[in-house]
Amino acid sequence: MFRLIHVAINEARRGMQNNHGGPFGAVIVKDGEIISTAHNEVLISKDPTAHAEILAIRRASQELGQFDLSDCEIYTTSQPCPMCLAAICWAKIKRVHYGTTTEEVSSIGFDDSNIYRILKGEKTAEMEIMTIEREACLELLKEWENKKDKKMY
Amino acid sequence: MFRLIHVAINEARRGMQNNHGGPFGAVIVKDGEIISTAHNEVLISKDPTAHAEILAIRRASQELGQFDLSDCEIYTTSQPCPMCLAAICWAKIKRVHYGTTTEEVSSIGFDDSNIYRILKGEKTAEMEIMTIEREACLELLKEWENKKDKKMY
Repeated sequence: MFRLIHVAINEARRGMQNNHGGPFGAVIVKDGEIISTAHNEVLISKDPTAHAEILAIRRASQELGQFDLSDCEIYTTSQPCPMCLAAICWAKIKRVHYGTTTEEVSSIGFDDSNIYRILKGEKTAEMEIMTIEREACLELLKEWENKKDKKMY
Repeated sequence: MFRLIHVAINEARRGMQNNHGGPFGAVIVKDGEIISTAHNEVLISKDPTAHAEILAIRRASQELGQFDLSDCEIYTTSQPCPMCLAAICWAKIKRVHYGTTTEEVSSIGFDDSNIYRILKGEKTAEMEIMTIEREACLELLKEWENKKDKKMY
């Protein structure tokens, strides 16, 4: 276990030193074996979703050929942001090991408190959320319900 | 605006009919021009993060060559899940237009209520979250703080 978080730490350090993004790394493990490693690549890839945990999940799912990672655990150098924690849920990962806390990460400039406010449904100056064409979109959900060959996931 | 949500609806329908994933589509727009379109590809890509909004953000950031999409708006057929809403925040998208609600999406089997519970810090049977090697991970944050050529984002 200690070995595994240090793989994530080394990954984070390498990414930071190469200016790929912030100081964050993650490792996904199955039965004690490393399936994927990743570091934050937001700067180098110019992709705002390229957090370490998202990249590690994406790579692990490709490596294992399945979107269900319920047999896996994730080691991540910092407490996952809401995007990454929700991604870990969708991947069905059952165990999360993290180093530094949200508050510590916030203190070096990576603040996700506003995201938590928006997720709670609070109105903020940063984002306007509105509905449009609900009836037409509802048709899509009905089509899914009636679809004979659908695969639930 | 109505035209744009219908592009997202058509995209969702195409993805569902081709068994790429659930009935969800998204479009990212800048100055009234479509920058990217996407549909859910969880099944076809075997990537649990391949929701329509995530793919649309990833494609728009590649198209524009920047991780900051603050000049963009997103049209999505359903209310974004927590992963996608947080990704929209990180992308700095200022305006979100959606069709069906979280409750309607949940009623056809895509339920994110458990994710909201985990994001609130509630203990659940689905996920165990624990800390490890905080001090070693804190060193990473200090290295970032002291890094002379860091670029904040």
